[in-house]
Amino acid sequence: MKRPNMSSNKLSHHTERQKESQINHPSFSSIVKALPATVPFVPPEEMERQTGHSIRLRLGANESNFGMSPKARQAMEKAVGKSYLYGDATSYDLKGELATLHGIRTDQIVIGSGLDDLLGLIVRTFLNPGDAVTTSLGGYPTFNFHVQGYGGVLHTVPYQDFRNDLQGLLQKAHDTHSRILYLANPDNPTGSWWGAEAIGELRRSLPKGCLLLLDEAYIDFAPLDTIWPLDPSDPQVIRARTFSKSHGMAGARIGYAFANQETIQAFDKIRNHFGVNRAAQAGALASLQDTAFQRMIMKEVAKGKEEYATLAAELGISTLPSATNFVAFDMGTPKRAKLAMDTLWKQGVFTRVPGAPPLNRLLRVSVGTPVERSEFARILQEVVPTLS
Amino acid sequence: MKRPNMSSNKLSHHTERQKESQINHPSFSSIVKALPATVPFVPPEEMERQTGHSIRLRLGANESNFGMSPKARQAMEKAVGKSYLYGDATSYDLKGELATLHGIRTDQIVIGSGLDDLLGLIVRTFLNPGDAVTTSLGGYPTFNFHVQGYGGVLHTVPYQDFRNDLQGLLQKAHDTHSRILYLANPDNPTGSWWGAEAIGELRRSLPKGCLLLLDEAYIDFAPLDTIWPLDPSDPQVIRARTFSKSHGMAGARIGYAFANQETIQAFDKIRNHFGVNRAAQAGALASLQDTAFQRMIMKEVAKGKEEYATLAAELGISTLPSATNFVAFDMGTPKRAKLAMDTLWKQGVFTRVPGAPPLNRLLRVSVGTPVERSEFARILQEVVPTLS
Repeated sequence: MKRPNMSSNKLSHHTERQKESQINHPSFSSIVKALPATVPFVPPEEMERQTGHSIRLRLGANESNFGMSPKARQAMEKAVGKSYLYGDATSYDLKGELATLHGIRTDQIVIGSGLDDLLGLIVRTFLNPGDAVTTSLGGYPTFNFHVQGYGGVLHTVPYQDFRNDLQGLLQKAHDTHSRILYLANPDNPTGSWWGAEAIGELRRSLPKGCLLLLDEAYIDFAPLDTIWPLDPSDPQVIRARTFSKSHGMAGARIGYAFANQETIQAFDKIRNHFGVNRAAQAGALASLQDTAFQRMIMKEVAKGKEEYATLAAELGISTLPSATNFVAFDMGTPKRAKLAMDTLWKQGVFTRVPGAPPLNRLLRVSVGTPVERSEFARILQEVVPTLS
Repeated sequence: MKRPNMSSNKLSHHTERQKESQINHPSFSSIVKALPATVPFVPPEEMERQTGHSIRLRLGANESNFGMSPKARQAMEKAVGKSYLYGDATSYDLKGELATLHGIRTDQIVIGSGLDDLLGLIVRTFLNPGDAVTTSLGGYPTFNFHVQGYGGVLHTVPYQDFRNDLQGLLQKAHDTHSRILYLANPDNPTGSWWGAEAIGELRRSLPKGCLLLLDEAYIDFAPLDTIWPLDPSDPQVIRARTFSKSHGMAGARIGYAFANQETIQAFDKIRNHFGVNRAAQAGALASLQDTAFQRMIMKEVAKGKEEYATLAAELGISTLPSATNFVAFDMGTPKRAKLAMDTLWKQGVFTRVPGAPPLNRLLRVSVGTPVERSEFARILQEVVPTLS
């Protein structure tokens, strides 16, 4: 391989000086210039490098530690062998499967390289700089990151009893003339949820021209009556989902959204058409078809949540009901929550505590495998008595 | 798995009517509203579905039909097993390897889910709506797609003798106060290239505050003297590269760019941090380390280009010199080029003809494997005499 540039950073001083006189820094866009340096999440690998602690129990990113369906894994491994070819930019097979499964049309579906990618696309499609957006205070940081990244203005509504305040969100969306109302249902980071009836009522009360963006990353874990009937013909609703949670494919980067056909066409005007990798498309298709594996995951996660609740009760801590694959332990105060997270971290247990009040007294713990759960129980039993 | 929404499209007529009265279409952003419905490339799978012809020889997307390094493939297959976990959002290992290889710092590197993703990121970072951008007429469509998708204004300069017209591009960038001057070097779709000296001169003559965006997707195939020394400290230059071409990982979706540290920090303010899939990161790292495989690919591609040139000469066609993994056959007229492409397509051979003059008389053919090349030769020998 040709690499004559390997030592190219060793420019002579003469050249360096010559260059200095010729440099005129290009300006960043107005939006980028105005943004603070921020990242939505510091990845656990970076936290390990920064603190020198290694993770033994990775329970802080709501991944599915049960792994993916063996059939999905096999499909992905097979697709690696063909990964010298670009993947299908239209995700024809996967959209066909999703359409059949949900009784909708393929032109009501968009596939993205993860739900985060789709949140960015949705924000970009609807928002002009300066436009208002309503979300919960302490809601999903990556959504906020995209709103700010496209010059939008965030308006937030505090959680009420650790649930999204639907009335408050509606009121705020009306008051601020919001273009988007974002709701994660079931919710991250609390695990709480609203039933189909409440969501229907929220939809009916939306301000004119306001988009209801439902982030349904955790919908597969929710009670049946949480799932509001799909109606992609409604241009005021987008429902975004992912293969990262129940399908255990977080590292594969693939998600999807249901939307009105006209909205899907608008996405096509700007989306990164060849962005979804080939193996992820194959894996997602196989995973959708492996319903037995999905049922097993649902059962395991339900069992794990019960175990966490029992564990917490034994330690005199309460947990929030959860319709997701994680449980929020209410540590009573932000100080105790932070101390618990830090102490666990030093023992190799990765969990998260949200930053915004009142959520900052919650310790969010993903449901791990049975072995991980028993190890977590052992460590938490040691840690809790040491918390002041 | 819970899917009560499978029949949810069957809303009652009563509900449909109720809903109609409540719908207020949210508006798309001003930029999206103004955009025509367009996609940068119709994928070959979609062309197959539309025409009913199956591809036997896939030589139209400049993929590397030699496949990826067996070591990269193994690393990717192994990483699939861990793909229930998010990949490292900082791509620490891969950036470290690239930094070592090129003698630069990791804070001068950004990793994206393919070069297309990075082109979008770069445009978004530097461009305000209405800002001017200079590129060649008939240059890479996906770059143009991103410029228009962020509201930029494209100014184009025709190719001269099937090469990018550096003087013309410079003049246009000056005249239009362009914020970005885009140059693919080596070039797609012509395969032509400029040497390091010409690029250095272009850099020195850039308008103040104009960014030189070098798309170096094909740089690994270029003669040594094409490779302009790397200097990521220069804020006016970004060099974008990919694992899709010489590394044979198009379907894995991973690319990188070298830029000034301040620019990398700006990217971090808006990029999709968890967008690069886990398997691609592992594969890219392994591929970089497999230099023997890289050398083999270079040799094979060089041999294939010679074969194509000989084939063309035998058929009375000329080919353009190429510093890439494809060869542009000059069919003499746009009509002959189009006819050749269509006739080949009906025989299962996927090639491309650029849309813009004077490039629209070129038939662009990726270098295939020896078997593919001999099959292509056989078919082209049949097709050429039938062209009017």
